[in-house]
Amino acid sequence: MDTARIGSNPEPQPELFYQATGSEVQLFEQADRFGMPVLIKGPTGCGKTRFIQHMAQRLGRKLYTVACHDDLTTADLVGRHLIGADGTFWQDGPLTRAVREGAICYLDEVIEARKDITVVLHPLADDRRILPLEATGEELQAAPGFMLVVSYNPGYRNLLKGLKPSTRQRFVAMSFDYPDAATESHIIQHESALDPARADQLVALGNAVRHLGQHDLEEAPSTRLLIHTARLIAAGMDPRQACEACMAQPLTDEPTAQAAIMDIVRLHFAEPGQVEARKKIA
Amino acid sequence: MDTARIGSNPEPQPELFYQATGSEVQLFEQADRFGMPVLIKGPTGCGKTRFIQHMAQRLGRKLYTVACHDDLTTADLVGRHLIGADGTFWQDGPLTRAVREGAICYLDEVIEARKDITVVLHPLADDRRILPLEATGEELQAAPGFMLVVSYNPGYRNLLKGLKPSTRQRFVAMSFDYPDAATESHIIQHESALDPARADQLVALGNAVRHLGQHDLEEAPSTRLLIHTARLIAAGMDPRQACEACMAQPLTDEPTAQAAIMDIVRLHFAEPGQVEARKKIA
Amino acid sequence: MDTARIGSNPEPQPELFYQATGSEVQLFEQADRFGMPVLIKGPTGCGKTRFIQHMAQRLGRKLYTVACHDDLTTADLVGRHLIGADGTFWQDGPLTRAVREGAICYLDEVIEARKDITVVLHPLADDRRILPLEATGEELQAAPGFMLVVSYNPGYRNLLKGLKPSTRQRFVAMSFDYPDAATESHIIQHESALDPARADQLVALGNAVRHLGQHDLEEAPSTRLLIHTARLIAAGMDPRQACEACMAQPLTDEPTAQAAIMDIVRLHFAEPGQVEARKKIA
Amino acid sequence: MDTARIGSNPEPQPELFYQATGSEVQLFEQADRFGMPVLIKGPTGCGKTRFIQHMAQRLGRKLYTVACHDDLTTADLVGRHLIGADGTFWQDGPLTRAVREGAICYLDEVIEARKDITVVLHPLADDRRILPLEATGEELQAAPGFMLVVSYNPGYRNLLKGLKPSTRQRFVAMSFDYPDAATESHIIQHESALDPARADQLVALGNAVRHLGQHDLEEAPSTRLLIHTARLIAAGMDPRQACEACMAQPLTDEPTAQAAIMDIVRLHFAEPGQVEARKKIA
Amino acid sequence: MDTARIGSNPEPQPELFYQATGSEVQLFEQADRFGMPVLIKGPTGCGKTRFIQHMAQRLGRKLYTVACHDDLTTADLVGRHLIGADGTFWQDGPLTRAVREGAICYLDEVIEARKDITVVLHPLADDRRILPLEATGEELQAAPGFMLVVSYNPGYRNLLKGLKPSTRQRFVAMSFDYPDAATESHIIQHESALDPARADQLVALGNAVRHLGQHDLEEAPSTRLLIHTARLIAAGMDPRQACEACMAQPLTDEPTAQAAIMDIVRLHFAEPGQVEARKKIA
Amino acid sequence: MDTARIGSNPEPQPELFYQATGSEVQLFEQADRFGMPVLIKGPTGCGKTRFIQHMAQRLGRKLYTVACHDDLTTADLVGRHLIGADGTFWQDGPLTRAVREGAICYLDEVIEARKDITVVLHPLADDRRILPLEATGEELQAAPGFMLVVSYNPGYRNLLKGLKPSTRQRFVAMSFDYPDAATESHIIQHESALDPARADQLVALGNAVRHLGQHDLEEAPSTRLLIHTARLIAAGMDPRQACEACMAQPLTDEPTAQAAIMDIVRLHFAEPGQVEARKKIA
Repeated sequence: MDTARIGSNPEPQPELFYQATGSEVQLFEQADRFGMPVLIKGPTGCGKTRFIQHMAQRLGRKLYTVACHDDLTTADLVGRHLIGADGTFWQDGPLTRAVREGAICYLDEVIEARKDITVVLHPLADDRRILPLEATGEELQAAPGFMLVVSYNPGYRNLLKGLKPSTRQRFVAMSFDYPDAATESHIIQHESALDPARADQLVALGNAVRHLGQHDLEEAPSTRLLIHTARLIAAGMDPRQACEACMAQPLTDEPTAQAAIMDIVRLHFAEPGQVEARKKIA
Repeated sequence: MDTARIGSNPEPQPELFYQATGSEVQLFEQADRFGMPVLIKGPTGCGKTRFIQHMAQRLGRKLYTVACHDDLTTADLVGRHLIGADGTFWQDGPLTRAVREGAICYLDEVIEARKDITVVLHPLADDRRILPLEATGEELQAAPGFMLVVSYNPGYRNLLKGLKPSTRQRFVAMSFDYPDAATESHIIQHESALDPARADQLVALGNAVRHLGQHDLEEAPSTRLLIHTARLIAAGMDPRQACEACMAQPLTDEPTAQAAIMDIVRLHFAEPGQVEARKKIA
Repeated sequence: MDTARIGSNPEPQPELFYQATGSEVQLFEQADRFGMPVLIKGPTGCGKTRFIQHMAQRLGRKLYTVACHDDLTTADLVGRHLIGADGTFWQDGPLTRAVREGAICYLDEVIEARKDITVVLHPLADDRRILPLEATGEELQAAPGFMLVVSYNPGYRNLLKGLKPSTRQRFVAMSFDYPDAATESHIIQHESALDPARADQLVALGNAVRHLGQHDLEEAPSTRLLIHTARLIAAGMDPRQACEACMAQPLTDEPTAQAAIMDIVRLHFAEPGQVEARKKIA
Repeated sequence: MDTARIGSNPEPQPELFYQATGSEVQLFEQADRFGMPVLIKGPTGCGKTRFIQHMAQRLGRKLYTVACHDDLTTADLVGRHLIGADGTFWQDGPLTRAVREGAICYLDEVIEARKDITVVLHPLADDRRILPLEATGEELQAAPGFMLVVSYNPGYRNLLKGLKPSTRQRFVAMSFDYPDAATESHIIQHESALDPARADQLVALGNAVRHLGQHDLEEAPSTRLLIHTARLIAAGMDPRQACEACMAQPLTDEPTAQAAIMDIVRLHFAEPGQVEARKKIA
Repeated sequence: MDTARIGSNPEPQPELFYQATGSEVQLFEQADRFGMPVLIKGPTGCGKTRFIQHMAQRLGRKLYTVACHDDLTTADLVGRHLIGADGTFWQDGPLTRAVREGAICYLDEVIEARKDITVVLHPLADDRRILPLEATGEELQAAPGFMLVVSYNPGYRNLLKGLKPSTRQRFVAMSFDYPDAATESHIIQHESALDPARADQLVALGNAVRHLGQHDLEEAPSTRLLIHTARLIAAGMDPRQACEACMAQPLTDEPTAQAAIMDIVRLHFAEPGQVEARKKIA
Repeated sequence: MDTARIGSNPEPQPELFYQATGSEVQLFEQADRFGMPVLIKGPTGCGKTRFIQHMAQRLGRKLYTVACHDDLTTADLVGRHLIGADGTFWQDGPLTRAVREGAICYLDEVIEARKDITVVLHPLADDRRILPLEATGEELQAAPGFMLVVSYNPGYRNLLKGLKPSTRQRFVAMSFDYPDAATESHIIQHESALDPARADQLVALGNAVRHLGQHDLEEAPSTRLLIHTARLIAAGMDPRQACEACMAQPLTDEPTAQAAIMDIVRLHFAEPGQVEARKKIA
């Protein structure tokens, strides 16, 4: 089968581009040194996942990433029994593999998970650093190098969900935000090969749209979204059309909010694209 | 077994009729070039599915279509273990097949799916382009040519559902609408062999009914519905009877709304059909 | 095993009695000719099921009937894996059998089904006429002669249920109602062997009860219910007693509504039956 | 194994005592003659189950009784696949056995069942008299003698439950109530061997408690409960003590309602029993 | 395996201490004589379980006890199919064992069970005394000596739960309460070896706390709780400390209610224990 | 497999540091002597888990710890059947192992468990000390030394959850709180090697934050959280930065509450750390 095992990294990977914006690298390294779990907060697409990929490379660790959701069961994390020719056998889940191998286990959008997930995390997230596998009767001691990292977006107001205080207080926490204008323009140029002038224009446009506020948009445009737009512009597409396809349409379904974004777009990119009346594709 | 595997396309298919109405083809090709996922919005029966079938033919890709619904599980998309003579074996789902083969995977009405579905999409819908198969421990890198396409109808006001911003911002998006009158008449003639004069009459009737608005109809009549009507008229059925069977009855159960539609029908098709009082079949 | 396979019809069946009341037969035949799915609306017991049995005989097709309900799963329609001596094997459900054999598949009370059911219907209900079997990876092209028919009763006001516009607009639709008095009397005489005079009396009584309206009865008496009553009268039972057992008691549990019905009964059938005070059996 | 198969009745049973109170026996026989299903309404413990046992004996049919509840699945009624040495095999449920053998299938408290249950009943409860077994692909024609009987208590006001009109209108219905005083005393004497004078006293007491009404008691005392009381009195227990143990305590947990019942008891049975203050056993 | 089968009682047990407080023993024996099921009501820890253990010894019957809860399934009571080397085999549950062996089956806190549980009880709780095993097709006639006993605490006001009248009216019912002061002191001395003076003090204290009423405590202190306290005092612990650990802390989390209890404690046990301010262990 | 069985403790462990703060050790030993179960209440991170680890070492018992949650099933505690080469076999859960081996079973955050869990605890938590295994038909008598310990945080106001009085009254209960300042400073110094002066500063800061109250913080900072902060300070991190990463960010997502905490931090640690404006990592 032509597939790689999760985290097996059989060959050297090119180093990922990561632009540090504070002391997040040092704090992560201290947490690692003391075996403390790390909690990263921040909005969509601001670089949380990229940061953790970067730290895994820097520390020389395998990385197991699990995107959390409502139906993720403890078994999805820890493992389960499967039926083979000789009866049931146990198959480790990604968390268990990370515990055995001393890897980083990253739970993305952890507050989307059901609360029972946080419970298997508790004995891993204090001085015990153990993972009880109730289904097999094992109790794993985490290998040196194991690190638990979780993230969520505090901007989503989910009254029913959230980490319990008894979970939160186990973590070292850091808060991410969008990069400053110069850094963001640098990132965009690196990822899209767009020229500096138009990258700056795009960052200014992005920040203008970010000021529209919550009553217009569910969430502000991310750095990732600006990179998408930059790629289409660098490929020769009309900037207004690129902004409609990568910014106005993905951000909202509301015609008035789309119009407000396109007004801002027209202020930043003067030459008009032909916006069709019947079928809008930008 | 006399059935074709999904997407196996063993023999050349006749080219599908598709009438482009803007730059949607070019935008789709750019998204494909950069490996970006595509989101298509638009009302029922306006040609979204046909467009994607057309693009799959044009790009020479296999197409896997999945109609989303509340009970679609991640396993339905990704695959599952089955029990065979020698124990369990793994069977790929349509998304996994598309990822392995470099095909297009189209998730129709994606907001009908549970939110956990969108989570397997995240690592496929950013620069990583990977599909972690938690149940087998594999992590697939998408083959070149793989493309993720999703669609939904923004006209359905579903307060509980909707794409999360962290999902939406990963997509290049385009918005479809009904074609203009000349294009729609052309499509109807092509699909039903109805004469141009009556096709034009039918389009005018369709647009008149579309102006009835939301307090009368849950959704406006689609191009597909006009094609149905045209086929029955072209087969010799009385136009009023065809309009009742293919338009008034499918659009609504409300007698007053049905009467409003039939009033409009009578304005466009003067010769009367015998509408029975006791059992209405139009 | 002394049982017939669904729809196998191994021997000629006597022709079912069906009294057409409009052009429903012709419309059904046109829909069949164009491979369009058919939607039949109408109240309880007005002859929808009988009509479809009749059309299946007339067109020489096998008929698969599925009564829909809340817990009907897609697997119940499409099929499922069972475990045999050599591991799992696939067993077709009734929809899949109809698709393979070119038969009629009739989903009775389709709005009782969960919405995920309607989704497997979509690719069968447009020009594609395909049934993707996600569990096996097959994609079936419907055999010639396959026809999808669904029905529901628009009189049930179910706010949570209903067909989505994207489903409705795929169907040719027709609306059934109770037959006119002469036809209904004819049907009753044919089915119960009651004499014409008392059959006419019974139809007049039925129509009088139908005028009681919704605040008295959840649903008006059906033709089927009048046939039941007629059979007991023809068998020699006192008409008032037959009307209480087959009409007043089945229609409602409310004493006042039962009394209102029995008042109408007494107006139509003058000779008194002995209604007991302590235990009412009519 | 020292157990009888359901309904196998290997040896003649003594005839059950049943005291008819109207023409219910004749109506049941007519419904049987025409193959019509029967619906019996009535309060707790008024003799519905005993009546059906009586009719099964009288008609010489096996009887399958199923007590319905929220979690009763269609498989519980129809059957299911079990896993044996050679893979799965099918095991009939009680409804399927009754259909094959021409027996009576009695669904007690049918409105407690989920609505999907009623759906397997529909094709059995009209002229088709068929039972489709979707899991095996069979379609059983009911053997001659098969009869479907259902019951419920209309006094329970369950807003969420109830039979749909499309179900109700398939049944011949009859309504049971408590027997009149002379009949009830006769039944009590027969079942408990209590002397006629005290049986009459007990019936008078029962009817007095039945007049307490719904704001005091959830449901009035049944004939069964009076038989219980009579047996303890006939065995020599003080009547007041027997009435508290078999009537006041089972009917309610409310001290005021218990006191109201005991006041009535003292009016009918003058000699006092020693009611203890600390632990009341009556 | 060093474990006893439920109810197998392979060797004579020492007779359990039980202090009768009324005619409960005689009523239970009458119910047994007539094969009637028994319902016992009463608050937490007043001796219901001990009474039934006592009656099982007295009548020479095995006892199967099942603690009921929300997730107890019918299969937990009746039995289920397990998979062995030769396919599935049936394993009796505790209710089925009691029915086969003529034992007592005691369902503790029966209103915690789902209502479907009560349904398997119905045919066992009337004259039929049968247990239909739908999964195997058996219908068991209860062996002589089988007795069904259920209990609940009427003090819990659970609006959603409760026995249906059709269930309640099948039982002979008795109501338990706390013993009178002399009896309770006797029980405490017997179970804890505390001296009579301090046992009397403890009973007086318990009754004083019982008068605090419902707005202070969810439920009054049980005899069992007084025994716990007595054991620690008899072992030499300061009475105030024992009362805090066994009475104030278990009864409530509310500081004001704990303080109210400790005020009463100090009135009954004059010599002060050192109550720490920082960590209260009493 | 390189893992230890739960509780097998194959080699001597270094003695855990535990600072007693009252007579909790003596009370625990008395409860153990009488076989009484123990309930420990207290806020997050105040030392409950450490205390139980300490007592297990002191009493020379194995310790089985189960973190409770909504989806913990009885089978997770008691055991379940697995399928092996020769059919199903039974595997003990942690509670069953503790019962067989005479170990301590500790259920952490027991009110998070579903109520059915508490039911398997009842016969273990009174004089019977038995564990009925309904799935196997066994009834285990707890080995000498078995001890049941549960804990929860009474500060979480969960209206839907909570121990039933019939459960609570079976336990000897003790209440934990944060240690006094001298003890807490001693614990911090022992666990982090921070110097006494700054440990005292940190305890003063922690107590100041604890006075912010519930309208600012969901729960006050725990001793564990202060230890985390102390470790980073002892490792050379700026105290303000350490306090933001280990205290302000983990305690809350609210900017105003974070600012309030940081104001208090600045009052206790005068030298300023460079707090970045764009990305806060503290």
